[in-house]
Amino acid sequence: MAVIITIMVLELKAPEGASWEALRALRPAFLSYVLSFVMLGIYWNNHHHLLQATHHVNGRILWANLHVLFWLSLIPFATAWMGSNFDSFPVAIYGTILLLAAIAYYILVRALIASHGKQSPIATAIGRDFKGKISPLFYVIAILLAFYNPEYSCALYVTVAIIWLVPDRRIERMYESRD
Amino acid sequence: MAVIITIMVLELKAPEGASWEALRALRPAFLSYVLSFVMLGIYWNNHHHLLQATHHVNGRILWANLHVLFWLSLIPFATAWMGSNFDSFPVAIYGTILLLAAIAYYILVRALIASHGKQSPIATAIGRDFKGKISPLFYVIAILLAFYNPEYSCALYVTVAIIWLVPDRRIERMYESRD
Amino acid sequence: MAVIITIMVLELKAPEGASWEALRALRPAFLSYVLSFVMLGIYWNNHHHLLQATHHVNGRILWANLHVLFWLSLIPFATAWMGSNFDSFPVAIYGTILLLAAIAYYILVRALIASHGKQSPIATAIGRDFKGKISPLFYVIAILLAFYNPEYSCALYVTVAIIWLVPDRRIERMYESRD
Amino acid sequence: MAVIITIMVLELKAPEGASWEALRALRPAFLSYVLSFVMLGIYWNNHHHLLQATHHVNGRILWANLHVLFWLSLIPFATAWMGSNFDSFPVAIYGTILLLAAIAYYILVRALIASHGKQSPIATAIGRDFKGKISPLFYVIAILLAFYNPEYSCALYVTVAIIWLVPDRRIERMYESRD
Repeated sequence: MAVIITIMVLELKAPEGASWEALRALRPAFLSYVLSFVMLGIYWNNHHHLLQATHHVNGRILWANLHVLFWLSLIPFATAWMGSNFDSFPVAIYGTILLLAAIAYYILVRALIASHGKQSPIATAIGRDFKGKISPLFYVIAILLAFYNPEYSCALYVTVAIIWLVPDRRIERMYESRD
Repeated sequence: MAVIITIMVLELKAPEGASWEALRALRPAFLSYVLSFVMLGIYWNNHHHLLQATHHVNGRILWANLHVLFWLSLIPFATAWMGSNFDSFPVAIYGTILLLAAIAYYILVRALIASHGKQSPIATAIGRDFKGKISPLFYVIAILLAFYNPEYSCALYVTVAIIWLVPDRRIERMYESRD
Repeated sequence: MAVIITIMVLELKAPEGASWEALRALRPAFLSYVLSFVMLGIYWNNHHHLLQATHHVNGRILWANLHVLFWLSLIPFATAWMGSNFDSFPVAIYGTILLLAAIAYYILVRALIASHGKQSPIATAIGRDFKGKISPLFYVIAILLAFYNPEYSCALYVTVAIIWLVPDRRIERMYESRD
Repeated sequence: MAVIITIMVLELKAPEGASWEALRALRPAFLSYVLSFVMLGIYWNNHHHLLQATHHVNGRILWANLHVLFWLSLIPFATAWMGSNFDSFPVAIYGTILLLAAIAYYILVRALIASHGKQSPIATAIGRDFKGKISPLFYVIAILLAFYNPEYSCALYVTVAIIWLVPDRRIERMYESRD
């Protein structure tokens, strides 16, 4: 994932002139980069915890992992497109890739639980997976919203990122107290 | 290999406009990317199993491994060419690189068996290697077919990918029942 | 970081002609590359020592690490810009990224000490961290200086690099003898 | 080094047309790629053996290692230049980078022997280092020759590669029998 992150910065082309305006023109590209960096960071962080609890690997898990990597590998492409053409369609595609990556990650988690057992540390560590279930819903809303106002979509992507960045316990407690 | 996969996506240039048509123009590039991703995934998966059964490494094995990497490293180039110029010649070159990578992989497997012995777990794990022997045949047919109809060639490449994706036992049983 | 370093060289585009003049035109780009290479090498070296003294990792450390990576990942972009437009603004941005990377590294070190304890080997290994405290000061001066003379700024960046390259003890002794 | 190798292929741009002629125009770029791939493979292979015999690492060794990486990281740049402008000057620069990488590697080997002792396995494994001493001589000749005939230079680079590819014992024996 370090590779994907670094390759994204390659898409941040050096501006043509040496002025402040030349840099400002990169603003959408830069903000897209920051958002994608945080998203990939969240995956990296979660993936790290997942691997720590993984004891054995089979073909199904390897492919589930590659499936996650496939969608994540498309993020630099979608980031570059959204950064250079900030409009409904690229923003919706960006959200679609995030949605498919989230689904792929969910499948990977299921494959790990299936091979480690429901009583395994990996299963209890993931628990109810409140964030994993709510994120796709946000993405679907954001994708539809992109055709109305792409900036609102991005606000939703940022919201998902913040939900993941806030430590788990606080969120879960907040969630439970609302029940 | 994660690097090769991710570098491939770099060749997926962000479209010029923000429209659906701009994205549709990327269709051959995207399909080529998916095919190459799966092909590299298959190599990654098999390579992982191979390394698990490897106990010692010598100069010959290192070079056999680099030889595989050489052909795999050309896949992004061939993918980009086929994706931007979908025609007989690029499709045939793509198949040639797949063929040479398959041969290089076969040489690597032989080098590993030679240094580990015919009774070693690595030799029994590889077994009759039905898929490794039939893939080159498919590639040769696909290369020749490219000059007649490049789309048929690609159908053959997809077929090889599917043969590798289907779990081994089922295929082998199917194969044996046909004998 | 090997990836960031190597990706930087990608920004060193091959010159158009085959002449000595064509190569000479790359001089600012090449010097920027060497400076950034040394800077990333210093981070790599220090990071290596830091990881050796690290015994456990938590979410906060992972994010502090990603934060460092974020600013380092922008170095190729800033290097390419400074190399192709050697002027006040790009040189100041380059320094700003170095400054933010240094601050991020400082936060990472604090997070590690916080989780390992003030008596831990990691805390004593870092010690008074004279270099870590003086570097940001140099960067701030260099950023301001860039609007007056960007070449002086670069001289300051080189000075910081040299301070880090000189083995610790000699510098610390020099520093203490001046007290 | 896998990264450097793979990034080199990025410089192999997909040809504009779909014809055999379009591919043939890539011949110098492709041959340069193969040569650089083999050169990097030789470094990878030797580096692997070196690391196996290394027991401890200090700051000096880390920097000697980064120094090797620095020159190797310039190989994709020199390869791309030589591949697109096959002429005296780029070929001489290519040789200069190979020469400096060889010198950097020699310094790394000395740093390792210095910290492990002259009786250590690492010192005996390297032995008289016949190839390490003769390669720089070949590079110097090739660099000078480039201004007379760049193709002869490349023949010398290929010769060095072959010397390294031939297993050690045979060469050393050949060398000793000539004494």
